[in-house]
This record gives sequence, structure tokens and C-alpha cells, in this order.
Amino acid sequence: MDDISTEADPYLPYDGGGDAIALQELPKRGSNYVMSNGGGVMSSTTHLLDFLEEPIPGVGTYDDFHTIDWVREKCKDRERHRKINAKKKESAWEFTKSLYDAWSGWLVVTLTGLASGALAGLIDIAADWLNDIKEGVCLNAMWFNHEQCCWGSNETTFAERDKCPQWKSWAGLILGQEEGPGSYIMNYFMYIYWALSFAFLAVLLVKVFAPYACGSGIPEIKTILSGFIIRGYLGKWTLLIKTVTLVLAVASGLSLGKEGPLVHVACCCGNIFSYLFPKYSKNEAKKREVLSAASAAGVSVAFGAPIGGVLFSLEEVSYYFPLKTLWRSFFAALVAAFVLRSINPFGNSRLVLFYVEYHTPWYLFELIPFILLGVFGGLWGAFFIKANIAWCRRRKSTRFGKYPILEVIFVAAITAVVAFPNPYTRQNTSELIKELFTDCGPLESSQLCQYRSQMNGSKAFVDASPNKPAGPGVYAAIWQLCLALIFKIIMTIFTFGLKVPAGLFIPSMAIGAIAGRIVGIAVEQLAYYHHDWLVFREWCEVGTDCITPGLYAMVGAAACLGGVTRMTVSLVVIVFELTGGLEYIVPLMAAVMTSKWVGDAFGREGIYESHIRLNGYPFLDAKEEFTHTTLAREVMRPRRSDPPLAVLTQDDLTVEELQGIINETSYNGFPVIVSKESQRLVGFALRRDITIAIELCYPTQARQAPTLCIGSAQAEPLLWILPEHMQSERRAGKNARRKQEGILLTSRVYFTQHAPTLPADSPRPLKLRSILDMSPFTVTDHTPMEIVVDIFRKLGLRQCLVTHNGRLLGIITKKDILRHMAQMANQDPDNIMFN
Amino acid sequence: MDDISTEADPYLPYDGGGDAIALQELPKRGSNYVMSNGGGVMSSTTHLLDFLEEPIPGVGTYDDFHTIDWVREKCKDRERHRKINAKKKESAWEFTKSLYDAWSGWLVVTLTGLASGALAGLIDIAADWLNDIKEGVCLNAMWFNHEQCCWGSNETTFAERDKCPQWKSWAGLILGQEEGPGSYIMNYFMYIYWALSFAFLAVLLVKVFAPYACGSGIPEIKTILSGFIIRGYLGKWTLLIKTVTLVLAVASGLSLGKEGPLVHVACCCGNIFSYLFPKYSKNEAKKREVLSAASAAGVSVAFGAPIGGVLFSLEEVSYYFPLKTLWRSFFAALVAAFVLRSINPFGNSRLVLFYVEYHTPWYLFELIPFILLGVFGGLWGAFFIKANIAWCRRRKSTRFGKYPILEVIFVAAITAVVAFPNPYTRQNTSELIKELFTDCGPLESSQLCQYRSQMNGSKAFVDASPNKPAGPGVYAAIWQLCLALIFKIIMTIFTFGLKVPAGLFIPSMAIGAIAGRIVGIAVEQLAYYHHDWLVFREWCEVGTDCITPGLYAMVGAAACLGGVTRMTVSLVVIVFELTGGLEYIVPLMAAVMTSKWVGDAFGREGIYESHIRLNGYPFLDAKEEFTHTTLAREVMRPRRSDPPLAVLTQDDLTVEELQGIINETSYNGFPVIVSKESQRLVGFALRRDITIAIELCYPTQARQAPTLCIGSAQAEPLLWILPEHMQSERRAGKNARRKQEGILLTSRVYFTQHAPTLPADSPRPLKLRSILDMSPFTVTDHTPMEIVVDIFRKLGLRQCLVTHNGRLLGIITKKDILRHMAQMANQDPDNIMFN
Repeated sequence: MDDISTEADPYLPYDGGGDAIALQELPKRGSNYVMSNGGGVMSSTTHLLDFLEEPIPGVGTYDDFHTIDWVREKCKDRERHRKINAKKKESAWEFTKSLYDAWSGWLVVTLTGLASGALAGLIDIAADWLNDIKEGVCLNAMWFNHEQCCWGSNETTFAERDKCPQWKSWAGLILGQEEGPGSYIMNYFMYIYWALSFAFLAVLLVKVFAPYACGSGIPEIKTILSGFIIRGYLGKWTLLIKTVTLVLAVASGLSLGKEGPLVHVACCCGNIFSYLFPKYSKNEAKKREVLSAASAAGVSVAFGAPIGGVLFSLEEVSYYFPLKTLWRSFFAALVAAFVLRSINPFGNSRLVLFYVEYHTPWYLFELIPFILLGVFGGLWGAFFIKANIAWCRRRKSTRFGKYPILEVIFVAAITAVVAFPNPYTRQNTSELIKELFTDCGPLESSQLCQYRSQMNGSKAFVDASPNKPAGPGVYAAIWQLCLALIFKIIMTIFTFGLKVPAGLFIPSMAIGAIAGRIVGIAVEQLAYYHHDWLVFREWCEVGTDCITPGLYAMVGAAACLGGVTRMTVSLVVIVFELTGGLEYIVPLMAAVMTSKWVGDAFGREGIYESHIRLNGYPFLDAKEEFTHTTLAREVMRPRRSDPPLAVLTQDDLTVEELQGIINETSYNGFPVIVSKESQRLVGFALRRDITIAIELCYPTQARQAPTLCIGSAQAEPLLWILPEHMQSERRAGKNARRKQEGILLTSRVYFTQHAPTLPADSPRPLKLRSILDMSPFTVTDHTPMEIVVDIFRKLGLRQCLVTHNGRLLGIITKKDILRHMAQMANQDPDNIMFN
Repeated sequence: MDDISTEADPYLPYDGGGDAIALQELPKRGSNYVMSNGGGVMSSTTHLLDFLEEPIPGVGTYDDFHTIDWVREKCKDRERHRKINAKKKESAWEFTKSLYDAWSGWLVVTLTGLASGALAGLIDIAADWLNDIKEGVCLNAMWFNHEQCCWGSNETTFAERDKCPQWKSWAGLILGQEEGPGSYIMNYFMYIYWALSFAFLAVLLVKVFAPYACGSGIPEIKTILSGFIIRGYLGKWTLLIKTVTLVLAVASGLSLGKEGPLVHVACCCGNIFSYLFPKYSKNEAKKREVLSAASAAGVSVAFGAPIGGVLFSLEEVSYYFPLKTLWRSFFAALVAAFVLRSINPFGNSRLVLFYVEYHTPWYLFELIPFILLGVFGGLWGAFFIKANIAWCRRRKSTRFGKYPILEVIFVAAITAVVAFPNPYTRQNTSELIKELFTDCGPLESSQLCQYRSQMNGSKAFVDASPNKPAGPGVYAAIWQLCLALIFKIIMTIFTFGLKVPAGLFIPSMAIGAIAGRIVGIAVEQLAYYHHDWLVFREWCEVGTDCITPGLYAMVGAAACLGGVTRMTVSLVVIVFELTGGLEYIVPLMAAVMTSKWVGDAFGREGIYESHIRLNGYPFLDAKEEFTHTTLAREVMRPRRSDPPLAVLTQDDLTVEELQGIINETSYNGFPVIVSKESQRLVGFALRRDITIAIELCYPTQARQAPTLCIGSAQAEPLLWILPEHMQSERRAGKNARRKQEGILLTSRVYFTQHAPTLPADSPRPLKLRSILDMSPFTVTDHTPMEIVVDIFRKLGLRQCLVTHNGRLLGIITKKDILRHMAQMANQDPDNIMFN
């Protein structure tokens, strides 16, 4: 992930270049190319001299690690839509095609939802089984996990439900005895062995097959949704390897969760299915609508919270989120949730990951501990972000990062060695959270519920509903929980960033839940022993059930997750969907808001934004406000000391001069002006388009005028500029029909409507108006940067030209803005970004 | 509502004008005005010659029925924020002020939530009481409604709960007998009497005190949130009158609901509280954030659905919805919901308006009737919109609309006369919906639940849980429901648009609920009598409870509401919050989606958009896609036949010429160019700013150079241009310090940085650079309109200049775009818009 090369910036010099090539007039081109070129150079109302019958292949696509032009993509889609609409009435077949086109959006989100739900179910089941393998094996059927293995058992007492003869621990299997220090050591050893094996396998698969499969994927998905291209990040290999290694990583016992990676898995599904529909595969903006819906489906299956998933997609990951996408995201999330429920991986017919039901209302006084939990969550979030980023930066910059496999094995070994003795760290983190959330009921056998009964002081578990004094089991549990808390805090910092799939939701929630449960028990005991205090007197009598420690755990979990991710509404809604009652929204909101405010005091970025910054992705955060007073002219290139802007003039360049400019510079595009004197802006031409236009002449000229045009052997290196299918087409000489004659190196190139008046003996001029974007975005040099940033964010621009009194002055690209923002934040832009 | 005058368009001639005035150089102005002027004319980095110590009062505000400039408002707010941040460290007082400023957003939404919740509770209680007054009176305590009156009664049998001696019907009170045809007629008469009285009072209050209080208010709020100014629409008078008349209108028995108007009431609260905080009162964009939150609070209290309220605000009414607003909307919605629950107007401790709990799952086959209900909802929606708009247009265009009071009384009389005999139309519509939603349980005494018991065929109500054959009560109820359905459909068309507060949610839901319940009972009976049919065989045995007619009612209600408003996600979430289970989301979604698609087939606009169009508000819908291929130059003014664009040149106008241009035209602003020959654009100056700048010279010149400047008596008429506090200031001569000398009518006006070189004897020139917006938005003439529309929507522009090769060509205003869109849709723009 750290080797992402820099986005090719129009204003960064590069060492590429080609040989001399001759040009010829471009044949006619279809209006759909015209529309695709950044905003309708010509419309049906203007007369065109040059039309192609079909679009030039390769135009309108993007290179890897480039930023897309949202405006151009949306125009392309509208043009496609208009075409289909116009054809619709021609025949029944066209009408069917238009219907299919209209429904393909729903179809693709349905498929995405189905696949995400199915994969999530699969991952849940497999991770559960592998996790139990660490402790033992089911004798009847290898493929049963501990719980399934004991279902058929006749040990029917509830407390003994985990101990059934069919399930053998490794000590029982190998040494033949379940108890005693020898078997404990045996189990300990096997636990570490399996954990290391899983971790090794996971990191090896990631390293060898799909380096993009590591991490949570959410920072990259945010970047992709904001309009960046990372080829292969959402591909089929990433999907396959991520699914497999996610199971292994979860089972290895590392302090990580599967919720974040599930979003990545869902987005891979969305991306893969979008290839079935040209509407989405050929349009990067439309594809991102599918990805937004897919990320909603991912969260929906991660927590069983469809509405929360949609809001997560809206609040946290999406960039461009029209209302249509909202509706489709909702649909995808629902479909995914229903598929998951049909698979029923938790065996309880519940959609949600942690289903809880509380029976006691909360009281106003309790807001104080809830807010304290919020403060804890905010502090934890700020500390975690700083520590994790510092560690990740160290990993990137030192030799240590060169050995990812060793690092993973090392961390997995420490985790396994420390985790095994403590029951709260040994068990699956999701199960730990579930236990901490659950209120003590009569059937609860957990150590956490060993309260002394008031009547006879016996330690046996009794109806635990009213508050009671804590028994020794509770005290022991609290000590173990404290150790687990410290362990989780430390390990999570070192785990997030390893080269395995690793989510952050579950570890964060676990930390919050542990802290919350401890606070909850403390308040409960306080209320029991001091029920005559003013704050308890009114509502917390002896023998009544007034404090719910499970609720504290839930509030703590939300606060810690909020502190790390800085999510707000979506987080509250996710937790609201877990409990299904409006009752507890106020405590949750108080804690999550406090957590966000406390966290923001130490730094406004959440963990995902911090990782985006760490990896140097060109991400323009819509949430972050630009508050400086700089003007466009201070940000634009060229700077005072730079050479002047590379521009093309509309009608007095020759083909040779144009080639020279193309070859000498590496900019992604060139402004076209009326003349060097007036500097009045006419339009903007993309380098890619000019190169393709020039290249088109090659097969003819190579044969007809070898002195003017380079030979085929020499021209070969230039072919890499073209997309692959076009290269082969070129090599096969299929483009012959595009030949046109009479263009020489001395031919005049013109971007105007009519050819310039030339001397009688001059060669035929080359018209390039059709590749000219005649509606480039411009701002004046006095425009405050806050407005420029706003325009870039809202319209999704790649670049914007700067004028002064109608004269062209410079250009601002997305990267210039990011660089400027880093400068304003007193960061070294070159060190921070695009590394 | 139909007298809203047109937005002052920069390109509409008007008959205003002033006398000749002399000018003088503007004194220095503060940078906050500079920033407020549409985007930072100067920043701290540029040197300025002319600064005012304080902003000119009146600059940066808007006239009534004008569109705000979002970019300028946001810049203003950022500037204010920067100022406060810079001052923060100066003293403890400034720090406290900055904290207050940071928290004022939360404070204002809290206050709004509190007030909305309290008002909603008040309205609920008052409407309930007034509604019962129509039927009778509580002898013990006049101020009790029927239900409260009978709480203390000792008639404890459940069936008789409505009949208690304390509650007297009017017949019982006046004639002394409760039964018999005489008392029936007496009750009938009193019912009509009260209904007419309430309706008359409501329309009278609206007509006399607050004409803006009529209707649902949602179309206007949508328009206001999109950036239009309608002064007084959200004022205290509107709030007071709307609250009172809403109670009267609901009690009058007209076919209307209080849910839409509650959104208006909440927005009034938000607007009024925003006046307490200069951050919001002085910034139209920030104020709209509060209004978005307020509308969420309004829906939250209308249905008891906070999350649905937020999504409603997001999906249906809001225009600019940053994430911060999402969070605050959520908070406001929660606060409002909790206040309402504390007031407990429904007496059941439930937050939601229609709390239902179903115990039976739904089966796949049932999707067919659900989708049929969706089709019905869509058809109803399309029919209603067409019929209601046709009727409203007739009202606007014929003499009929001149007598709103008569119309209301007429409709109220018909409603009362027809409604009384049918128990389903006589009762409160909310209660009807509740009854239709509720599943038949053992305690249900409703006629709808009179099923024949399977065992003995007795008609007494028995445990109604398993499906049973319908008894005669059910058949009678179905006939009555059919009549009620027809009645509601007809009356709602004529009611929505009357000059009383009238919401559409409840009548629409009632229509859907009636249709749904009828379908539900039909399916239930089908399943009972034909349980051996293939579709029922698997899951619907005799004696099992397989069909829930209440669920059908709910699905039908959602479908009909969806058909009318075209809401999608927010509607499903609102209904999801009513039932609190994910279980029924699929049926709801199927119905709502079908309804939207069927409705869209007949016209894509919902009822609110249709009413916006009917009233001619300048509303640029963010949902509607612009799909035509026109270019900017085809939409811009001036057209080919028009006189050339009125422009100012940057340094060769005299004061007299400038005055001439100002007086001869009525445009809201003027582009400033380098020279008539080059037509290169420099900036944009607002008419309002130029007028104020010119006016500033008056007090000095009047005394010092009476021949050049108009006297005070003559100048008086010009004062109306200035805001009121400035007029009095002017009259008191306080502006003396702004005097400056030497400016004559022949003085040169210049917008450049440095004064032009002038002959030695020429008078002192007037520098107006500080009022120049040096960053006007420009597009080229070749820009497709779809991009221009996108820019207007996303950035919230008022106008945009059109250039060609760096030369100024024309201007496009928001209204030009709306006019063009109407033209493209084959509507006569002048007839449709701004009437």
C-alpha cells in the first residue's frame, strides 16, 4: 500500500517523450466523444465539419492513479442516456434495451447485496469454525464449531452447555486428559501454534497474491469514491484473497475485526458486478454510485444494521451521493441483510451482531458516567490515532517495514501468548462484546453475573435482576477485564496497519465495552452500598433494578468507536438498530458527542483520514473546512519564479511546434489561447487526446511520406501511450480507414471553427477543434481559495484555469490545492503527500 | 399565497429611479465588507487604499423575494469565524464569546427542538379537545376531552369505556336524551354548527392576520431553503396564527392533517430563535441550516419518528445539507420527540403517532397484494396531483378565488354534512388510521374485529388471533369504509389549497389505510375460505393466524403517501419507526417503490414541486435532471434581438454616466469590463452597492456644493433604498465623518487599483474598487446547459457571466435557467412562472 506512485500531475515534469510524428486531419468523430470531452464542445445545434462515425477508443478513460473528472463523466452519462432515450421508440428491441438500461442500476445493487450478504455469512461461519479449531476439535464432525458440536449433546444443563463429550480440546485429544497443568500447557501450545499458522498463512497470501487486500480498506475506498483510480484495488483477486485471509486473520486471534474489511469485500462485489453493465463499467462516476451502495451493504451485513449502513455510507465514505444513490444504497443494504439472516451464521435468527434487550430505563444522573465514558472514548481515539500513525510512519520509513511477514508473526505470537491465560482475551472479541453488552439475567452463567444473593449470601447464581452486591466472581472478572483492557489497547495500536486484513470497529468497541462494563459495575455497587446518597435516593432503592451495567458497556463501545472514527449519526443509528429502542438514544448521543468533541480537541482527523494522509492519497475532504484567506493567484502555477505556462495558440502553431510542446512538457493538458499577445482563453486540450490525434496519422504517413513521419520501428515506443486493445489494433493496421492525406510537419494546426487564411502554397492545415474542451472552468486570480476549494469539492474538478481581466494567467489542479492546504497546516507538502 | 410578487430579476425593466446625485470617494471600509462582497475582492495580502472602519450598514442583506447568493453568504460566515478565532486569545471575555459562538448552533437547535415539541404537544391536546367539543361536553370539567372525561368514570367494562355519565352529547345536554332520532338530528346539527364555526374562525384569522399561515407550508419552505427570501413567512405572527388556526382547522373536521403544518410551525420556531444569535440572524445561509434542522424536528414530532424526520429533511426539503447540519437536525429531532413524549398528548407514553405491533410474519405470496396497493398508491398520487393542481389553477385564475372564506365554509359544510352519518368519517382521521392499522386482538371492540368465532359462530368478540370468517360487523364496516374512501378522495382534492393550514400526510395515509384494510380483509377471507389453494396451502392452515389486515393498511398508507409526495427512504424509515421492526421493511419498500414508479409514469413531480411550480417560486430542483443539449449562449441574455448588455467600464465612466446607467436600467448588477473595445471582464458590481456608495456623498455635497448635488428635500425619495436604521442615521446627519470632498459629477469613476492618468484640471476621481466583486463566476458560451445548471445547483449561484474567448458576452440568472427549463418542457414560461 505504501508504494502507490504519484498521480500524474499536469504540472510535474516527467522524463517521458517520443520521437517526431507527422499529423493528419482527424476524420469525423461521433457526438458522444464530443460530449465526453469535458462538457460538450459542440452540440447538435452547432455545425461541425469533423465527425467520427464512432468514438476513438481509449478516449474518456483514465490512467491508474489519476483523478477522474466528475463533470465530464456525468456529461458522458447524460449523453448516453439521451441516445438511448432517442432510440427507444425505434423498435421493440431498442425499447427493451432502454428498459434494461433503466433497470440495470437496481439489478447491480441487488446482485451486490446478494453477494455481500452471502460472503459475509460465509466469512462469519468460517471464522467461527477456525477460531474454535485453536482450542479443540469436534470428534463427530470436523466441520462443526464448538457450539454446533454440542447442540446434539445430551448435557442439557445450561451451565454445562459448553462441555460435551463430542468436543475435545487438543490436550484431550493428544494427551487423553482434559484437566491438569500438562493439558493446560498442551492447549496453550496448540493455541499459539494455530494462531501463528493462521497469521502466517494470511500474511503470505496477501503478500504473494493481492497486496491490496491488507488493512481495513476504508481509507482507500474513501479515496476511490472521491474520484481516484486505483486499478485492481476492487478486483476479483483482491476479493478472493481478502475473503480468505480475513477469515484467517480473525481466527488468528489478532486484535482486529472483520467489519471494516467487509466494506471492502462488498465494494469489490459492487465493482465486479458493475462490469456486467456498460452503463457502470464505462463510467467512473456511475461506478462510484454502485460503490457507495456497496459500502452501505457492507456495513449492513457487518452489524446487521441496514439504515446505519446507509448513513455510514453517506456520512463516512461517500463523496458524491445523489438521492437516487441513497435509495439504492438502502435497497442493497436490505438485500444484503436479508441474505445474511437467511444464512443465519449466528444461529439465533437475529439480524444484528449483538442483540440486546434492556428492561430498565436510564435515569438523568446516569448521564454523568455516560459523559465520562464519552471523555474516555475521545481520549482513547485521539491517543490511538496518534500512536498508530506514529508507528505506521516508523514502519514506512525504517527498515522494519521490509519484513511484513516477520512483523505479523511477531505480533501474532505476542498476542497469542498474552491472550490465552485471560479468558476475556482468549475468546472471540465479538463474543466478548456480546457478553459485556448482555444484562445479567437468571440464565446467565457468566462470571460477570456472580452476584451474591441478598437473602442468604450464597455465591450460586440466582435471579440477578435487582441490583445486588458483587460476588468474588465479579471482582475476579473486573481484574481480568482491566488486564484485557490494557492488553487490547496496546495490541490494537500495533495490529492496525499490519499487512493482513484488519478492521478497527471490533477492537475499538471491545475496549469501550470493557471500560463501560467496569464503570457500570462500579456505579451499580455504589448505588447498592450508598443507596441513601442524594443522587440515588429517589430511584435506586435496595432490591430494585436501577443500574444496567450492560448499557454502560454499550455506551462505552459507541464512545470509543466514535473517538476513533469520528462518526456521529451513523454510529448512533447503528447502535439504535442493535437495541431497537429510542429509549437509549440520549445516553448514546451524549457519549458519542462528548467523545467526538474531546477527540477533535486533539486533532480533527479520524483514523481513516489520518491513514489517507499517511499514504498520500489525493483526497479532498468534504468535511474539513478551508479557512485561510489566500487567493487563487497565490496557489496557481506557474509561480513567479517558474517558466511561463505552456499554452497552445489557436491558429498559428505548426504540427512540428505542437509536437515539440507535447514532447518537451509532461502536463496532462494545455490551455488554448487566441494569441500569445492577447492571452485570451479559448479552451483546454488534454495531452492524452492530442497524442491520440497525432498518433492516428501514423500508419498512413509511415508508408506514404517516410521523410515526414517516423518509421514503424521508431514509432513503436510511442504505442504505450495508447490503451492495449488500441495498440494491437494499430499494429494490425486496422486503422487504415482513418488515413487522410496532405498533412505535413509544416501544416498549421488550428482549433478555430474555420481554417486560418494561409498562403496559397502552404500544406493542408490540421483541424483539432473536436478535441478542444471549449468550456474549461475558470476563476479569476482574485477568487478566494475557499471558493475555489468549494468548487473543486462540489463539482469534482481535476483542474481549473485562472484568469485576470479575461487573460489567462495560470492553472490550479487538485494537487496544487492539497499541497497548498498542507502548507497552510504547516506541514511539509512534499514529505506528507504523494510519497 | 398567490400574490407573491416576482423576484427582481437583473434583466427585467422596472420603473424605479432617482434623481441626480453627486458622488464622493468612499472612505475606507473594513475587510469584512470586502469579504462579504461575493468572494473577497481584496484579501489581507493586497494593499488597499480605501477602507472603511466599519461595514456599510445594509450591504450584504437582501430584498424580499430575492434569491440569496450562497457563495457570498458562506464567505461572510468564514470571515466572521476567522475574526472570532483571531480575537479568541486576546482576553478571557473574547474567549467566552468564541465559545458562545461555537455553541450557539447547538443552542439554537435545542431551543427549536424544545419549542417544536412543546407546540406540537399543545396542538395535539387542543385539537383533540376541540374535536370532541363537536360531539359533546364534559360536565365535570369543560377542558377535558372525551377520553380524559371518562378516565375517572366507574364504568369499567372495556366495551363501555366511551360511555360515561360525565360526558354528555349535545343532544343529551340540550334535549335531555341521548337516544332517538331527535337527539341524532340535534347532534348532527351541533356537529355541523361547530365544524362551520371552527372553519370560519380559522379562515378569518388567516385572512386577517397572517395570510402566510395557510396551506401546508412545505412548498414554501422548500423554496426558502433553496435560497429564496420570503419575509414574514417564518415570522412570529405566522407562527401564532398557524398554531391557533391549525387546531381549529383540524377540529373542523375538514379532510386535512396537522403533520405538514407542524413542519412549518417548527421552521417558524427555528427562524425566530435564530434571531437570538447574530451568527444565524445575519447570515441567510447559516439560517437555512437551522431551518433544515427545524424541519426535521417538525416531522419528528408529527410522527414521533426522529430518524425519519432527519431523512425527510434530507430527502424532501433541504437544499444545502452539510454533515454538521445532519447531526444538528438529528439532535433537534430527538429533543423535540422527547419533549413531546414528556407532554404525552396521546396518553399512552408512546412517542409515535400510530404505535402498532404485529405478531405474524409476512409471506412471500403477500407481496402481490402489497404491490397492488403500491399501484393503487401511485395511481391515487398521480390523480390527486393532477386534479388538485387543476382545481388550484382554476381558483387562481377565476373569480372563485376571490372569496376564500366562502369557499372554506362551503367545503366545511359539505364535509360535515356527509361525514357525520358514517362513523369512519366522523371520527378524527388520526384515530381512524390507528384503528385501521391495529390488528384485531382480544380486547379490540372495533366493528372491524367482529369475526365469527369458529367454535360456536357467535358474534360476540372472542380471541380474534387466528383467521376467522368475517361477521356481519366486518361486512358493514367494509361498506362504510368504501364510502369513506370515496368521500376522502373527493374532499381531499378540494381541501388541499384552501386558505387554512392544511396538511396532506394524514388524508393520504387515511385513503391508503382504508384501501389497504379492505384488501387485507379480502385476502384474509380468501385465505380462510380457500385455504386449500396452492398459494395458501403451505402456510395458511385453518385456525392459524396468517394474514394481518392491519399490516395491509399500513402498507397502503405508505404507498398512498409515497404516491403523493414521492418520498422514498424517509417514508419507509418513518413507518419503520412506527413498527420498530425490520421485519416489514420489504413489504413497505415493495409498495413504496411501486407507488413511486407508477406515479412517476404520469408525471415526475410530487405534490410539493407541483405547488412550487403553480406558485411560480424560483426553485431549482436538485432531483430533476436537466437532459437537454442546449448551450449557455442559447440561454444567456441579451438575446440576439435584445439591446446590448449594460456594462460598466473600469476607468472611463464619469459619475454622471454611471448615474445614468443606474437610473436607466433596473438590473441587479452590472459586469465591469476593461473597455468597450476589448470587452474583457474585470468583475461584477451589484446595483445595491453602487446605489449605497453614491448615496453616501449626499449630506456633504448637499451643503457644500448645492449646484452639483441635489438638495435634501429632493434627495429624500432616494432614502427608501437604504435600510431603515440607515435612513434615520442619514436623516440625523450622523454620517458626517464619511464626507469627502472634491467629487463632482464630472469626476471619473474607476474600479482599478490605481487611478487613471487624467488631465491636470480634472476633478478628483472616485474609486469604487471596494464594491467590485472581482471573482464573478464565468462560463464560456459553449458550456452545455446541463453543466451550468449543475453549477447553479451545487454552488447556489444567483448569476453567472458568459464569456467567449475571454470577452464578455452575456449573463445567465437563476430565472433565465428556470425560464429555459420551462420552455424545454413545452410550457409557456411566462404563464407558468412568477405569476
